Amino acid sequence: MYDAESVWATVRKVRESGPLVHNITNYVAMDLTANALLAFGASPAMVHAEEEVRDFVGISAALVINIGTLSPSWVRSMVRAAETALSRGVPWVLDPVGAGATPYRTSVARDLSRRRPAVLRGNASEILAVAGESEITTRGVDSVHGSEHAVEVARDLASHLECVVAVTGATDYVTDGARVVSVTSGHPMMTKVTALGCTASALIGACLAVEQDALLAAAHALAALGVCGDYAAEQSDGPGTLRWRLLDALYVMDDRTLARARIEEVRSASAA
Amino acid sequence: MYDAESVWATVRKVRESGPLVHNITNYVAMDLTANALLAFGASPAMVHAEEEVRDFVGISAALVINIGTLSPSWVRSMVRAAETALSRGVPWVLDPVGAGATPYRTSVARDLSRRRPAVLRGNASEILAVAGESEITTRGVDSVHGSEHAVEVARDLASHLECVVAVTGATDYVTDGARVVSVTSGHPMMTKVTALGCTASALIGACLAVEQDALLAAAHALAALGVCGDYAAEQSDGPGTLRWRLLDALYVMDDRTLARARIEEVRSASAA
Amino acid sequence: MYDAESVWATVRKVRESGPLVHNITNYVAMDLTANALLAFGASPAMVHAEEEVRDFVGISAALVINIGTLSPSWVRSMVRAAETALSRGVPWVLDPVGAGATPYRTSVARDLSRRRPAVLRGNASEILAVAGESEITTRGVDSVHGSEHAVEVARDLASHLECVVAVTGATDYVTDGARVVSVTSGHPMMTKVTALGCTASALIGACLAVEQDALLAAAHALAALGVCGDYAAEQSDGPGTLRWRLLDALYVMDDRTLARARIEEVRSASAA
Repeated sequence: MYDAESVWATVRKVRESGPLVHNITNYVAMDLTANALLAFGASPAMVHAEEEVRDFVGISAALVINIGTLSPSWVRSMVRAAETALSRGVPWVLDPVGAGATPYRTSVARDLSRRRPAVLRGNASEILAVAGESEITTRGVDSVHGSEHAVEVARDLASHLECVVAVTGATDYVTDGARVVSVTSGHPMMTKVTALGCTASALIGACLAVEQDALLAAAHALAALGVCGDYAAEQSDGPGTLRWRLLDALYVMDDRTLARARIEEVRSASAA
Repeated sequence: MYDAESVWATVRKVRESGPLVHNITNYVAMDLTANALLAFGASPAMVHAEEEVRDFVGISAALVINIGTLSPSWVRSMVRAAETALSRGVPWVLDPVGAGATPYRTSVARDLSRRRPAVLRGNASEILAVAGESEITTRGVDSVHGSEHAVEVARDLASHLECVVAVTGATDYVTDGARVVSVTSGHPMMTKVTALGCTASALIGACLAVEQDALLAAAHALAALGVCGDYAAEQSDGPGTLRWRLLDALYVMDDRTLARARIEEVRSASAA
Repeated sequence: MYDAESVWATVRKVRESGPLVHNITNYVAMDLTANALLAFGASPAMVHAEEEVRDFVGISAALVINIGTLSPSWVRSMVRAAETALSRGVPWVLDPVGAGATPYRTSVARDLSRRRPAVLRGNASEILAVAGESEITTRGVDSVHGSEHAVEVARDLASHLECVVAVTGATDYVTDGARVVSVTSGHPMMTKVTALGCTASALIGACLAVEQDALLAAAHALAALGVCGDYAAEQSDGPGTLRWRLLDALYVMDDRTLARARIEEVRSASAA
């Protein structure tokens, strides 16, 4: 479960089944997200019209909703897609990009979070904002808090929303309210490539299509992305190189690559 | 006509005249499409507002309509642009991304296909869906059929719509209902880079601006893209590398590069 | 001021303060713009909904408005954001992409230009169109005029609008109506990468956040981008390579890199 072999098993299942992942995501992230999902072995589609999101959710193995460049018509589609996913048993991921930065954004993120995503993934500032921690403010889309400051809030939020919450940062924390797992991989230069958080959410979607335990799906996706980002950064002079090397790494990774994955149980369900 | 020299002649004409290609395309493909058109020697523009598409079609040498991330307001602009292109004699390309995946998408694709595009380009699933083959279903935006299964349907569709139909896949087939031409080039790794189908449609647009025979324009564009993709893939560890090497290849290709192009007449007009 | 050391001082200030730059920009440019701002040391955000642009301008250090893929709802947000920026003293940049190509586009560009941007940046055709030079026509988004043909018009326009006008091309000219500064750097291959003009506008936004003299902010941003593009092009086989190497160069540049910057005073304020 919490080891490199399990990550590899999940990755192989994605590659073998090539799950169709429906994304309603932001304009900035679409290109990288689609390419990352393809390199990872999934089949991505970006579909947002109210006229077709219900039908499209119906043929998809997972749904990813990302509010990065939200507007009212897109939010209507997001709500409709989330409702469909819930009624049809399609697991979905919520990425509350920039929650806390403006009241509109926070309000949309909170409303969506109550519609039973399988996984809610954000940086510390975003998770704190969704949880309603009133003192915090999000500064744009980059976190002003370390992930370690949001772990306890994330745990309560996971219990409250009955979903898995993933707080990503230098160390990622994934919790379902009872269990808490940390994922330590990745590289600081990854923060200089736009939309890697969005990409994390998309890969979580792909893993949810093949792994029923949403905590494992999230942890495995984050571990795979982190390890690939780490390898890519080691061979990169800057974020321009990192971006394409990361896509190559997602495409060629194998069990040896993933041996670098570090997933640890911080708190077990029995301790809860 | 059906040889590498003719492909090179068409590419040179694009480079010399730098045709303005008006794109109404999807959010995922915009960046790659614009960069591919620039590397190919054309001058791309992405313009979609109803308020200006008529004026913009009027100054353009070709128009490319791609329904990848469609919504009603964009569809209104697409219809308006297609009508203008038809009335002004500007050749246009239709890319029915994901036709067959949802009723909305199929219906929009069919409606546009009846507005006299010069070329309709899609993968096998999409072309079958536009043709109304009821048993087939499209799985997202990736084809579930090989291109060879759609050749006969494509030929009938081309006759019915009075346009050229290009079915792309491991082998591409281009037909005007009478003639059928196959283009064999490209590399399997190209399916792991998002929006390369959209890019094919855009390059067809650029070639239509300089080559009146739409069947040749489509075949030459597909051959050039396939050869460049093939060269790029040979030097790539994964789809991240492939994407930027492909842009370089489009920029530097010459007659020697294109010697690798394989275009064959599968059925001639006289045989029809 | 007009030397490499001053450019370096501005770049360092951006890196140290990591200013939040709010972008309302076009779909094609979003990804490159966000990555360039990150590599440059700023914190980018793309936010366009009318519901939140006022709030977002309020927490930003600079605003960049780019009309590349405009539509009426986006234009309403642009106007609202520009008004907020003006009332709150947030410096903003206007990029009138394609002004002159259609009446709609020209009219929106002119309307926005009257709302007191700190800097208006465009190619020669766009600047001539904003200035109302009736004989000129813009051919899509690529300039049909050399920047040197627009210098005098730019100077008058800067005086009239009471802002800084930057005309970019093989040589860039920056003027506040009194002073005129030229920036000579960059490489012809940069015209084969889409959205580098948009990227220039975005980096000007980042520099405006740390440098009060808008003429210097613009000149320094253009010099830094040009030098990095020049280095990147020297190591590139084509525009595919150039794009990622440019991001690396923005990330690693230092005072030695910037020694290549050539900024000259063409006309001083006292001469005016």
